[in-house]
Formats: sequence, C-alpha cells, structure tokens
Amino acid sequence: MNDDNRPSDKAFQDYYPDNVSHCYGCGRLNPDGLQIKTHWDGDETVTRYLPRPYHTAIPGFVYGGVLASLIDCHGTGTAAAAAYRAEGRAMDTEPAFRYVTASLHVDYLKPTPAGIELELRGRIKELKGRKVIVEVNLLAEGVATVRGEVVAVQMPKTFLAS
Amino acid sequence: MNDDNRPSDKAFQDYYPDNVSHCYGCGRLNPDGLQIKTHWDGDETVTRYLPRPYHTAIPGFVYGGVLASLIDCHGTGTAAAAAYRAEGRAMDTEPAFRYVTASLHVDYLKPTPAGIELELRGRIKELKGRKVIVEVNLLAEGVATVRGEVVAVQMPKTFLAS
Repeated sequence: MNDDNRPSDKAFQDYYPDNVSHCYGCGRLNPDGLQIKTHWDGDETVTRYLPRPYHTAIPGFVYGGVLASLIDCHGTGTAAAAAYRAEGRAMDTEPAFRYVTASLHVDYLKPTPAGIELELRGRIKELKGRKVIVEVNLLAEGVATVRGEVVAVQMPKTFLAS
Repeated sequence: MNDDNRPSDKAFQDYYPDNVSHCYGCGRLNPDGLQIKTHWDGDETVTRYLPRPYHTAIPGFVYGGVLASLIDCHGTGTAAAAAYRAEGRAMDTEPAFRYVTASLHVDYLKPTPAGIELELRGRIKELKGRKVIVEVNLLAEGVATVRGEVVAVQMPKTFLAS
C-alpha cells in the first residue's frame, strides 16, 4: 500500500526535490509563486486555488493565463503522482519523478468568476513511457468553466540530481 | 491609410477602452500585471517582454505558464488589431474591438532561457466573423522555443460600453 493512497497533508508538490521546487506555479521554494498544492481523490487529482485580486481578465473574472498556469502545474503534478502510483511507490521514495510540459491545450468554456476558491480536477488519460497525458477540469462553484489537457514528459534525470 | 500602419509609440493595448484594460496580462490599468505591448511589423505583430526574476520554471529557465500568458494576450491583441485593419480603421476609432480567448494551444519546443528579453511574433491564420485565429512564435535570441495558437473571439459589445 502506498503512502499516497492514505490521507496526508503533504501535497504532490511537497515531495518535489529542492532543486526543482522553484517553479512559479507550483514550487514551494518560490515565495512569489502560486504554490499550488495537489492531492489524490480516488483516481482523480484535486487542486484548490483562490486567485489573487489582481489576477483579472475583466473586472469580476479571472485571467485566462493564470487559469492556464494552474492547469499546467496541476497537470505536471498529476503526471508525477501517477508515475509513482504506476510503479507502486510512495512519493518520498527514490528515484524522484518530476515532469515538464510538452504541450498545453486550454478551452475557455465560460468566464471564471473572481473572488472564489477554484477547484481543478485531473484525470490520467494516458501513461506510456516517459509521457503522461492529463485531462483537467477547472470548476467554479461546481461549474466547469475551463477544460485543459496537459502532455507532460519526464524531466531528464540530470535536473533531478541534488 | 490607417494610423496603425504608421510608426507609433502607442501599442495595441494602449487603445483598449478603460473598462477592459485591467487584464493581468495586457491591461495598462493593472499595476501588478505584465502590461505587454504589441505593435505591427508589416503583416506580423511583435511583443517584447523581459520575464521577472521569479518567473522561474527550473532555475535559469522561464515558467511555461507565463509564456502561455504572453501568447494569450499577444493573440487577443493581434486579433483586435487585425479586425481594425480588416475594416480599414485606425485603432482609436469607434466601435472598439476587444477580443477574449476561446482556446489556447501551446507547444513547448525547448526550455526558454531566463534573463533575456523574449520576442513574440504573431501571424493571422484566419479572420472570419467574430473569430480570429492567431499563430504565435516565441523567440529567445532568435530561436523559437515555444509555439502557440490562440482562437480569439470578439468580446460582447455590452462589456465595451464605457
């Protein structure tokens, strides 16, 4: 049984090696960054994020580039967690998995309201070799406002040496 | 002859009506935002942007979500400028054009180095009715590191009433 299937306060991103934890979207060592936190919820992955007041598209709605960023890092985090799970390993075991984005597709279905905590839910569409494809729905009060797909590839091992 | 074909210090974004100028990516009235500025260069559009030091992916390289944001707002700005041009109107004439993103696709071709001014170059792929498709190349020292496509649709007129 993996640790990552038990309830835990630690998010996927908390297991990233220090030298790959400066990402503006998800690095716990980037004090200016969004610092998203992602967890398993059954076979889905969940991130909750309250956009900053200045993450504006037009007043009252959230900027699409920030939503794309959330989907991006939710996707790479989900990819890493899925890779550990596929190997039957907990996320604190070696070697570390860390993914980068090869491509990102985002469909903006409707405006995303500002001032509320958003929920991203990810699902593994494909896991094959060094590539993971993650589908992401972004919801505002239960309504999907944005849909994304992230093609993530495993970061070269040379980046992961600490 | 349109004003937008003559050399001008004013960028596309400087013509956006005030009430749609708070965008985090391109709004001149968002003091925390990226405030990108886009101009014509013949049939292409150009934005230059120096990422902030904390826009990190891994140290030394720029965060993909910020690059997606640049492509997004470069795309909507290009869409607006192309719509004025198609009507043979200068960007300071009424009615105002302002576009939102329906979908965004980004391919990360190689890591984008930090610490240098990036160049985005846009090209109109399609302009039909209320929809404009813009292809964008993002270059670092002349090398394309990211390629994007933005499907932009005209913002409803109700948003543009000042």
